[in-house]
Amino acid sequence: MNIIELIEKKKRGKEFSFDEWKFIVDGYMNDVIPDYQMSALFMAIYFKGMTLEETVNLTDLTVKSGDHLDFSDISNNFVDKHSTGGVGDKITLILLPILAAAGIECAKLSGRGLGKTGGTIDKLESIPGFDVNLSSEKFEELIRKNKVAISGQTKNLTPLDGKMYALRDITATIDIIPLIAVSIVSKKIAAGANHIILDVKCGEGAFMVDLASAKKLASTMRDVGKHLGRNISCVITNMNQPLGRAVGNAIEVIESIEFLKGNYTNDLCDLVFEQAALALLKTKKRKTREDAISFVKELIASGEALHQFGKIIEAQNGNSKVLNDYTLFPQAQNKIEIKSSQNGFVSNISAIKVSKACKLLGAGRIVKNAPIDLAAGVFLNKKYGEFVNKNDTIATLYFNKEENIEEAKQLVQTAFDFSLDKPNEQTMIYEIIE
Amino acid sequence: MNIIELIEKKKRGKEFSFDEWKFIVDGYMNDVIPDYQMSALFMAIYFKGMTLEETVNLTDLTVKSGDHLDFSDISNNFVDKHSTGGVGDKITLILLPILAAAGIECAKLSGRGLGKTGGTIDKLESIPGFDVNLSSEKFEELIRKNKVAISGQTKNLTPLDGKMYALRDITATIDIIPLIAVSIVSKKIAAGANHIILDVKCGEGAFMVDLASAKKLASTMRDVGKHLGRNISCVITNMNQPLGRAVGNAIEVIESIEFLKGNYTNDLCDLVFEQAALALLKTKKRKTREDAISFVKELIASGEALHQFGKIIEAQNGNSKVLNDYTLFPQAQNKIEIKSSQNGFVSNISAIKVSKACKLLGAGRIVKNAPIDLAAGVFLNKKYGEFVNKNDTIATLYFNKEENIEEAKQLVQTAFDFSLDKPNEQTMIYEIIE
Repeated sequence: MNIIELIEKKKRGKEFSFDEWKFIVDGYMNDVIPDYQMSALFMAIYFKGMTLEETVNLTDLTVKSGDHLDFSDISNNFVDKHSTGGVGDKITLILLPILAAAGIECAKLSGRGLGKTGGTIDKLESIPGFDVNLSSEKFEELIRKNKVAISGQTKNLTPLDGKMYALRDITATIDIIPLIAVSIVSKKIAAGANHIILDVKCGEGAFMVDLASAKKLASTMRDVGKHLGRNISCVITNMNQPLGRAVGNAIEVIESIEFLKGNYTNDLCDLVFEQAALALLKTKKRKTREDAISFVKELIASGEALHQFGKIIEAQNGNSKVLNDYTLFPQAQNKIEIKSSQNGFVSNISAIKVSKACKLLGAGRIVKNAPIDLAAGVFLNKKYGEFVNKNDTIATLYFNKEENIEEAKQLVQTAFDFSLDKPNEQTMIYEIIE
Repeated sequence: MNIIELIEKKKRGKEFSFDEWKFIVDGYMNDVIPDYQMSALFMAIYFKGMTLEETVNLTDLTVKSGDHLDFSDISNNFVDKHSTGGVGDKITLILLPILAAAGIECAKLSGRGLGKTGGTIDKLESIPGFDVNLSSEKFEELIRKNKVAISGQTKNLTPLDGKMYALRDITATIDIIPLIAVSIVSKKIAAGANHIILDVKCGEGAFMVDLASAKKLASTMRDVGKHLGRNISCVITNMNQPLGRAVGNAIEVIESIEFLKGNYTNDLCDLVFEQAALALLKTKKRKTREDAISFVKELIASGEALHQFGKIIEAQNGNSKVLNDYTLFPQAQNKIEIKSSQNGFVSNISAIKVSKACKLLGAGRIVKNAPIDLAAGVFLNKKYGEFVNKNDTIATLYFNKEENIEEAKQLVQTAFDFSLDKPNEQTMIYEIIE
């Protein structure tokens, strides 16, 4: 076998056998196949695709490239939830306490953000003392004791994915559906869950811009899961406008706490309830979707979900007083209110513009491992469908560093569109593929 | 500007401006843009192509990436001839003495071979003493004195092409028509000729396997030349079967000498006469193609072309006695005759199989700068259309190292096809694009 001939083969749209993928993976992990051959191969895959069998084989090889977690001695009912990434996406922060309150086992490994705002792990770090870098021993201990824990990656999981993703990121080869499926599913399998719920974002603020691509990604991931013995459900959701009102890190945690106190932002409800219901159905805690959603509402109304959030925070050395005292979060030195230049209903808020503004304010990373400002962010005082009078505050920018502020203001100002008629309700859940 | 965004842009089939190409070229030459981004870009170009304007711009930037020769103080009538590479392609060796005999200026820079058999420079090295590594001073001196000289690359010509070609070679991105055009035309422009004759090989033994691709490459090169002020004519020629009877290095020089003595191999005639005629017409030495071809035949019949070959050899310190004493060439220790297993007319000789056999015998390189055996090669005792009786010798293998001999024998034996009816004459010249 010869990597040049294999690149040529993929260029011509042919399928690789398992042995050919193994040759490529071994060569790449051992630095025998250099980056410049892998990037050419990725670009050929962008144009020619991969079959399901190839995607299954590469996912399997990616799982086996590193360690993997196994909690089967505790339960065969572990749930994992993952989002393909959106703007203002705080669903994990809300869902985790709800699942814990429902008694569902959840060993959650999350990532830091690159681009957009921070990832779930960054957001949780805005809670003083919260330890998101658990050793694998500590992580397992918490899972055994509390059935729930959340951490950044502990062991050496899917190193092949890390290496491939880093190269794809700098060679314009991220947007390849089978390789996205390999990346997501391999990580979830290595993390050991039995039931995997994937929130496939679709819209201008997501990797998948159109519904056809989102559906293709979702069905590929479900099928790969099936071939590798995992139950994968995908919820395809609307990611055209920022989710909720807060976009940043600390301010997203605050919005999540408010949600758990019953102060719902509309568009978050559908996403949280639907995914929580899926988890309850998969783990057989409830029999129907309606029952499941009622149960979730009860867990919030009774304060049990919020209580569980406090327990998770304390178990990981965080200060749970933040739940009732938001001044304990990192605070921005400056804020600027953006005023509306006209009357009308908000008919759109560009997720891309708000996300770019957040990055300029310091809330997101431009390069890997860069520090981010946990206090910075954008709060949307007005959301889709709400009426605005001229000079009303439509958004508030929170920031510490002033250097890019004019550009950020401009982005947020122009992110809003208005209409004279009240716009139709937004569809938040496009489809569930399971 | 940002290389990742540019790769993305090409992935989507968009055209780069001159400034964008300059950014890419400068970044790559200065090692700011690494190989893994260039190879991804090449693969995107494979699928999405380049416009003529892009091809012109990249050719221009490639010429300017290094030195270039300029003989305009001697004449504005310099001719250069180049072949895209074939099996048994010895046209340059025959054409150069003919052009010299016709009084045409020709400063020829040639390459060494990679794959197939050796290049023209390798073949000339089989003439004892022949210096093919002229300094640029010596090269210019010979041009001024004799109007003709041939050498391997003297100055630092088109270093960008060298860097790009080496990367394309190991990332399965050689077969990209606009990049092939850039590579060939930039080298010819940098070498300073006014009239450029390009022999575009087409068939199983060539880069361009089908006529449509060969025509596309030819018209692209002509158009690029036009935009950059050079007169480029392309002759699209048949490269399905080895050219002439000899495939190797020394044995090809011997066949070339025989041609200049009037002992023509049929398929070489068309190629030599047509290209020589083009050179005579371009330089206005003759007015019609018929006159030109008659003149070439006279130059051979009178011995003037052979005499000029002797002069070229002597001017570059070679031993011109080889012209009449072939034992002065490197001699192979072993030879094996391949016998026909049947009666019939030769209906095909696979160029690829003969070429692979030559490589196995040591006559070609597998990696850059590897030494090659100048005495090794394959002689085709029977050619297309000739009748063969069972057990007649159809080919002879010349070699020094025995290790791959069984495989080489097998390849040459199976390279021949036979038919009971005499096959039609081969068309050697498919089209002239000028």
